[in-house]
Amino acid sequence: MRIATLALLFMSTVAFAQETILGFNESDSLSQQELEAAFDSEINSAELDEWLRILSSEPHHVGTRKGRENVEFIAEKFRSWGFDTEIAEYEILFPSPKTRELELVYPTRYTATLEEDALPEDPSTSSVADLLPPYNAFSRDGEVEGELVFVNYGTPADYDILDRYGISVEGKIAVSRYGGSWRGIKPKLAGEKGAIATIIYSDPADDGYGRGDTYPDGPFKHESAVQRGSVMDMPTYPGDVLTPFIGATADAKRLKREDAPTITKIPVLPISYRDALPLLEAMGGEVVPEQWQGGLPITYHLGPGPARVRLKLEFNWDMVTAYNVIARMPGSEHPDQWIIRGNHHDGWNHGAADPLSGLVALMSEAQALSRLAAAGNKPARTVIYAAWDAEEQGLIGSTEWVEDHAEELDEHAVAYINTDGNSRGFVNIGGSHVLEKMANEVMRDVIDPQTGVSVGERRRANLQVNSNNPRTRDEARNREDLRISPLGSGSDYSPFLQHLGVASLNISFSGEAADGSYHTLYDTYEHYTKWRDPGMVYGAALAKVAGRATLRLANAPRLPFEFTGLSDNIALYIEEIETLADEMREKTAEINSMLESGIYDLVLDQNESLGPPKSNSAVPHFNFAPLKNAISELDLASQEYKSNSSDGRSASKAENILLYTSERELIRTAGLPGRPWFTHHIYAPGFYTGYGVKTIPGVREAIEQRQYDLVAQQIDTAAEVIKGMTARVNQLNQ
Amino acid sequence: MRIATLALLFMSTVAFAQETILGFNESDSLSQQELEAAFDSEINSAELDEWLRILSSEPHHVGTRKGRENVEFIAEKFRSWGFDTEIAEYEILFPSPKTRELELVYPTRYTATLEEDALPEDPSTSSVADLLPPYNAFSRDGEVEGELVFVNYGTPADYDILDRYGISVEGKIAVSRYGGSWRGIKPKLAGEKGAIATIIYSDPADDGYGRGDTYPDGPFKHESAVQRGSVMDMPTYPGDVLTPFIGATADAKRLKREDAPTITKIPVLPISYRDALPLLEAMGGEVVPEQWQGGLPITYHLGPGPARVRLKLEFNWDMVTAYNVIARMPGSEHPDQWIIRGNHHDGWNHGAADPLSGLVALMSEAQALSRLAAAGNKPARTVIYAAWDAEEQGLIGSTEWVEDHAEELDEHAVAYINTDGNSRGFVNIGGSHVLEKMANEVMRDVIDPQTGVSVGERRRANLQVNSNNPRTRDEARNREDLRISPLGSGSDYSPFLQHLGVASLNISFSGEAADGSYHTLYDTYEHYTKWRDPGMVYGAALAKVAGRATLRLANAPRLPFEFTGLSDNIALYIEEIETLADEMREKTAEINSMLESGIYDLVLDQNESLGPPKSNSAVPHFNFAPLKNAISELDLASQEYKSNSSDGRSASKAENILLYTSERELIRTAGLPGRPWFTHHIYAPGFYTGYGVKTIPGVREAIEQRQYDLVAQQIDTAAEVIKGMTARVNQLNQ
Repeated sequence: MRIATLALLFMSTVAFAQETILGFNESDSLSQQELEAAFDSEINSAELDEWLRILSSEPHHVGTRKGRENVEFIAEKFRSWGFDTEIAEYEILFPSPKTRELELVYPTRYTATLEEDALPEDPSTSSVADLLPPYNAFSRDGEVEGELVFVNYGTPADYDILDRYGISVEGKIAVSRYGGSWRGIKPKLAGEKGAIATIIYSDPADDGYGRGDTYPDGPFKHESAVQRGSVMDMPTYPGDVLTPFIGATADAKRLKREDAPTITKIPVLPISYRDALPLLEAMGGEVVPEQWQGGLPITYHLGPGPARVRLKLEFNWDMVTAYNVIARMPGSEHPDQWIIRGNHHDGWNHGAADPLSGLVALMSEAQALSRLAAAGNKPARTVIYAAWDAEEQGLIGSTEWVEDHAEELDEHAVAYINTDGNSRGFVNIGGSHVLEKMANEVMRDVIDPQTGVSVGERRRANLQVNSNNPRTRDEARNREDLRISPLGSGSDYSPFLQHLGVASLNISFSGEAADGSYHTLYDTYEHYTKWRDPGMVYGAALAKVAGRATLRLANAPRLPFEFTGLSDNIALYIEEIETLADEMREKTAEINSMLESGIYDLVLDQNESLGPPKSNSAVPHFNFAPLKNAISELDLASQEYKSNSSDGRSASKAENILLYTSERELIRTAGLPGRPWFTHHIYAPGFYTGYGVKTIPGVREAIEQRQYDLVAQQIDTAAEVIKGMTARVNQLNQ
Repeated sequence: MRIATLALLFMSTVAFAQETILGFNESDSLSQQELEAAFDSEINSAELDEWLRILSSEPHHVGTRKGRENVEFIAEKFRSWGFDTEIAEYEILFPSPKTRELELVYPTRYTATLEEDALPEDPSTSSVADLLPPYNAFSRDGEVEGELVFVNYGTPADYDILDRYGISVEGKIAVSRYGGSWRGIKPKLAGEKGAIATIIYSDPADDGYGRGDTYPDGPFKHESAVQRGSVMDMPTYPGDVLTPFIGATADAKRLKREDAPTITKIPVLPISYRDALPLLEAMGGEVVPEQWQGGLPITYHLGPGPARVRLKLEFNWDMVTAYNVIARMPGSEHPDQWIIRGNHHDGWNHGAADPLSGLVALMSEAQALSRLAAAGNKPARTVIYAAWDAEEQGLIGSTEWVEDHAEELDEHAVAYINTDGNSRGFVNIGGSHVLEKMANEVMRDVIDPQTGVSVGERRRANLQVNSNNPRTRDEARNREDLRISPLGSGSDYSPFLQHLGVASLNISFSGEAADGSYHTLYDTYEHYTKWRDPGMVYGAALAKVAGRATLRLANAPRLPFEFTGLSDNIALYIEEIETLADEMREKTAEINSMLESGIYDLVLDQNESLGPPKSNSAVPHFNFAPLKNAISELDLASQEYKSNSSDGRSASKAENILLYTSERELIRTAGLPGRPWFTHHIYAPGFYTGYGVKTIPGVREAIEQRQYDLVAQQIDTAAEVIKGMTARVNQLNQ
């Protein structure tokens, strides 16, 4: 009844589907729409559910029996659907735990259990052959003993606060909560600051009973649950730590392990909040700042000490084989133009949500595509489905494959479409803004399973109601296309987008099923189907969104790349960076002036150790004109291309090549300062945020990190990159 | 060393003290400064400490032996210092607990202890003769059993959220945390919504281990501690519930208890977080919204139930005698012009912080004044020191005295200066803006005991560093005077300011010693002198600030009233109210439009019960012109008065009467809509905030409560009040 009413209310939206599709003329649009309707009818939630159950029945990280079985299962499916299927193997370094000991030795004694409880309500939690116990992959070995310092989330801003208290982690063990940054940043920064180890725990305020009922009563983090995860320095380079830039083939030239720059400098171990409580309770020193207090029933203290812990970590530094399943359906017209659609298959444990909920959608898409092909509708371009291994350890399977096939991909890769864990709620699409228009048309044409309106309309509604950003609310009402978000890192799009410059999208649903299963023993079939996507209806919706994106890229006579969205988003980033510089300049001047006038001496409580903030050299004014001039020209060129191509006329092969290789204009082989593997000059994961994106990263991070003498050169590079794109668009305009 | 450096840095500030004082010409300023220096030298921290120890040795609420002993102690001191001292007695209704039973009866059983633990570290906590156990005074009697509903802070906004969940407290027991509003609002609103009882507890996130170490390890709330407090409907009228508008003399005509409108409609009991935990843990229903989760180690739920509790409350509804100590020093020149300086003496328990830390400052001031008088420097005007009884139960002692002496006060009262509990840190002065300039000069001339700069300078520094409001930060740098804050309620200034229109100030220090002792067993001498003001140095600073205000009002040839501050602050309130209306209009329209378009049906999770917000009728545009015209005229008149009086020339008696009765122009005997006792049309406690101030309350509350047809009339009344003030200032300008 409710859905019927809604469908009625929003018929106008559904009518959109009758419009033409970017890259197709009117009549081609109609046949494509028919094809997509047929595609939809092949997506079967019950099948997704069945595959999810099978694939998630046991732990299946890289190197396991079950992992290998899953590879065979997936490959066999692809073969049965008529794909040219190969299993691409890479020999990678994979540390697994040999010794994990964590003990509070003073002033009381407590030995951390470091184990997750099996729950009678969830049989999967007892099916633990090959279970990897909680640990952080690519922590170095070590045995240390030292006093604890509480570093909150362990971000640069947190260390600024500790500095104000006169507290250093030098020679101490930093205890950090998960959140606030990607986990790998915590040991990276703690190591830079001289800590001898890092312990990371999930605070119940962020990820536990403070969020909602805990598993199995609800979806949130069980008191014994531990978030595993890689801590390799991915913002330097992801993938096998021994083979940066090259595929980790059997005979690849490898770094020595001790020379691998992406292994942590200090040991690091994740623990549960149940294990964290005795440690934090034993700490003394100053009470933490208000925002640092977590959800445990104690007063949090900064330390150092008196709590001392002993931590001993040893790993099996094994070489294991990672297996990527690569399944090809050659294009009927343009076999040398490749659309790549990927999702990893390895999980930390059972991995029902992460990654299998996305993988089963991908499989469903592949099956549907094969049936369309069997019915005479082969894709015009080659479609490659990839199920990556060893993503969890650092995007290893995908990165090695990309590095291994860099030249071919540079020539042939049209776009990469990624998914990973899925959930219920609102569609999220992030990625290359040359694909923003296409992404919006896809969101317009897929129906939300709960409300009967398009997933785009539902996302628009959500932004209007729930966004805290006035610009976002306003744009949700008035901007023709919803912005897609720029990509940082955290899944397998990184090597495609940020290393090779292959236009990429990352797609998921979320927002209605927050939970605490991520990278824990409790990411099971039972948990997923009870709390995240009962009936796998959003799994089906994901398949329809990612499937449409794949099909349109595969079939469009003119590739659905568009440049006004890119230009508008880059313009926004430039504006943001200018504002950032202005605000830093103002804030720095304000603090310096207050320091000079001695005002902090009047304000700060002489009974406490909190000192004034530190002074910084004045933030200079930067010449943003090159960027602004460049973006004005890109905007003009983009408008012209839009108007030229608006009639849906098809493109020549040469034009299509110019279109899909346009993203390559945004990379420079020299890479970003200090991290040459990352070549994209518009999108990168933050060097000190990890997964969090930094747009126009060369310029933004130079300012953020107060490396002012780098800024002008980075502005020039970014402007050159934009000019390159403008030249490319103007080539298309000729 | 540090202090010396600071004193050097800020010599320019100290130099201010050489300037003339408002109301004094140059030579009078010099003698006044000498007098104040002599006054300062009589303020003795050790004496404050000793008095505090004596007065706080046992519980001393109204009606106790110790309370009576304290009255005698105080009165005897005043007599010994040469004051005409009387003890003004009122017969008031005072409920004390007879039966307090709270029991969880389903699904588990738990009997709340309702007791606070004696602590070996604090001997006072075992000195508990006449101890009042935790309760809320002026709760009605009752025995009820019902399901619990969690109402967060129990504010109107919280009930709006509950409405969205489809949850009503009708027939249920509301469990609310302290905070977010004055406590009396919680049973008031719950009762209006049909609840059968209210339980109030202190959540450890707001007031317990979530803030810092708990007593006796630190100053924060012990797990057994309970905040007592009155819940009479003070925003309707404070004071004895049976004798509104008239003094509660022995023969006063009294309401019947059942007709007293300020007794709660439902039973209400405060409890500790230790007692709250089993109750909240037993609750079910939807998980609370993110902001509602507190600091207990459980997931909070809204209910209703399944937890059911039985609550039984019976009180001794006794008539007891409240004793105010009233000590006069007649003025040498203008004995018929009275400066009244008050602080209550009754406490909920030992009351070291509240109220004795303020009272001992007042006593010290009185002693110093008496010594100046003995040395030949009697105050020119009459100074009356008052130590009020029964403040804790609802400002009863002060209110009854004011009502009893309303006519004399109307004629003679120049100003009322209040203090109450004190602490360490930054000076706060709130009150009538006709005294803003004087208050600033006082802050300029008292030296902060920690930093050696003036307390005004320190406050200015604090606002610059710590205020979140950009206007406040900017004004702290650039406005000639710091704004003093408008007064709501919560201490004995209310009857003077808001009932009679006597210009008032309320003064304290705070900001460096947050704690959890308020209204608990742990508000002891030991707690106060260890955690709040060791050495009573801020007690001495308080005496110097309040003492200067008293002395200047007592001696100024021209009363230090000034109108540009008033005009500027009222202009700000008008601006705020216009913004409030604009924002409500915009927000209402936005929500109505989203409701009409059905957008919430797209956004809200169909698996959860949270519904859309409710629609409201459109907010009309109001004619603020009468207020703006009135304030423009007041501004002109005020500037003229400022310039006329800037030479410090003395005033005639008639001029001084015009000055001090000017605040009476801001009251109207008809009072505010629905609460005639509150006659001030610029400052009032909020009807639904309690202590929190509402400026231009008639207009502001009519808009906030969406009673739009009241607005025009209230704007007219407020404009008339301002015009009356303008006419008064113009009379002075003639």
